[in-house]
Amino acid sequence: MADDDRLSLNTATTKRLTLTEALEAAQRAGLKHVGLWRDRVAEVGLPAAARLVAGSGLNVSSLCRGGFLTAVDPADRKAALEDNRRAIEEAATLGTRELIMVVGGLGEGDKDLVAARQRVADRIEDLVPHAEQHDVRLVLEPLHPMYAADRAVLSTLEQALDLAAPYAARTVGVVVDTFHVWWDPKVAEQVDRAGREGRLASYQICDFNLPIAADALLSRGMMGDGVVDFSLLTRLVDATGYQGPIEVEIFNADIWASDPDDVLTTMKQRWAELVLPYLTSSAAPQRV
Amino acid sequence: MADDDRLSLNTATTKRLTLTEALEAAQRAGLKHVGLWRDRVAEVGLPAAARLVAGSGLNVSSLCRGGFLTAVDPADRKAALEDNRRAIEEAATLGTRELIMVVGGLGEGDKDLVAARQRVADRIEDLVPHAEQHDVRLVLEPLHPMYAADRAVLSTLEQALDLAAPYAARTVGVVVDTFHVWWDPKVAEQVDRAGREGRLASYQICDFNLPIAADALLSRGMMGDGVVDFSLLTRLVDATGYQGPIEVEIFNADIWASDPDDVLTTMKQRWAELVLPYLTSSAAPQRV
Repeated sequence: MADDDRLSLNTATTKRLTLTEALEAAQRAGLKHVGLWRDRVAEVGLPAAARLVAGSGLNVSSLCRGGFLTAVDPADRKAALEDNRRAIEEAATLGTRELIMVVGGLGEGDKDLVAARQRVADRIEDLVPHAEQHDVRLVLEPLHPMYAADRAVLSTLEQALDLAAPYAARTVGVVVDTFHVWWDPKVAEQVDRAGREGRLASYQICDFNLPIAADALLSRGMMGDGVVDFSLLTRLVDATGYQGPIEVEIFNADIWASDPDDVLTTMKQRWAELVLPYLTSSAAPQRV
Repeated sequence: MADDDRLSLNTATTKRLTLTEALEAAQRAGLKHVGLWRDRVAEVGLPAAARLVAGSGLNVSSLCRGGFLTAVDPADRKAALEDNRRAIEEAATLGTRELIMVVGGLGEGDKDLVAARQRVADRIEDLVPHAEQHDVRLVLEPLHPMYAADRAVLSTLEQALDLAAPYAARTVGVVVDTFHVWWDPKVAEQVDRAGREGRLASYQICDFNLPIAADALLSRGMMGDGVVDFSLLTRLVDATGYQGPIEVEIFNADIWASDPDDVLTTMKQRWAELVLPYLTSSAAPQRV
């Protein structure tokens, strides 16, 4: 395979670029995949976004994101379900099966994590029929435990796989994001489990930078700039037989302020040094 | 029991106070226990510290802290073992069995978390005979995963209990610190396990404040100021039959800048509101 055949640019990494600009940047860098955030899709509207993506020849590795399923208020719950059903439809229209789900945190003043986690389980159950109907997979994303209160009450891969267990692997999967799982003492066991269960739907990479950024969401770093052992995690993912795209998704103020082409150049260098050597599987499936 | 019979002031909460001042503040507040950090002990020297504590009539609930066991270099490893042996002796001299262990993070540039965790296991094995000889317990503290690289490669209660498993419960235990474990989907199961295995050696409380502080170590907050569900965690600890002291340990720049007597007043109010209602066990064992 060509070196970059599996590398995917997630549009969060080039936050300042419009959808068109991000697609062009990925093409200039010789990439075959992009991971799309819904904000970039919404800016041009779904039909235009689908045309742009189809015209680019790029494969969409995932759509980010559905989720935010922890609302207690019935109206908020209904709104969240409607938004997630739209996200499912958007994924199908854009040509990806993988809808990344960031499940949401606790409401203001709410401290009942156990109940919030149960609400997530209930909303997943509500969404599964619509996902099945559109042949889209709800890809549960465990987030680093420092976001458990304000971003995602789903905190470990084990918890995500337990939550996915009642459903077909084709309909509910998990994403391994290096930033969120590198610290987990059970990561080897649970990545292997995700593979065995056929639920490993996406592999997202970036580093965990220290010190933690003032806005903790922006602590994601370019591979090699932080503490993550990409050789270990990539070997684990590779050992499952995962052959899909590998998305670089970085929220980082310095990277956002840099020239996007320079960012992609660095991204390809770090990929070649830190990730590619640990991949044995053949190229990612191409767009059909 | 009197309302505050189990409440313990950890000297980290009153960082500006000397050992003498912290003991006096605890006495003024009507407390029966203090948790000591080694820096406050070192300032006056161990014999004087032991005399001051004995003279105060206060029980020492724990000594904080041993640990930092991840060194690779043989000289650094030897120094760490010597320091931990001294910490064991200090705990015995100060009249507590419980030596809290913060195991340490990765060295500069090191990303091999698996190997670092194995070194911790090896150093615990090295230290167990000395701990047994002095009848002191090595109390393993899992730290929040946001500190996994720079502070403690021990990240969950499950991992701590697995690490403790080869040894007698009297010699290797664990501490449940609300700040570090509140997010863990397995916290109920693992606190119960700690109780069943006789390893629940200490219960430390404080809140998890958001946003995360610029210095992430200082995100600990007064109970009630953050996202922690003290009713849940206290019920879990109580259900194990744990009857020991409960230490308030807060690293927080605003609290350190406040009048210590005011801090203790607030601490007692929050304890009475948020923790005490969930305790059914009788009073903590007193100093003999």
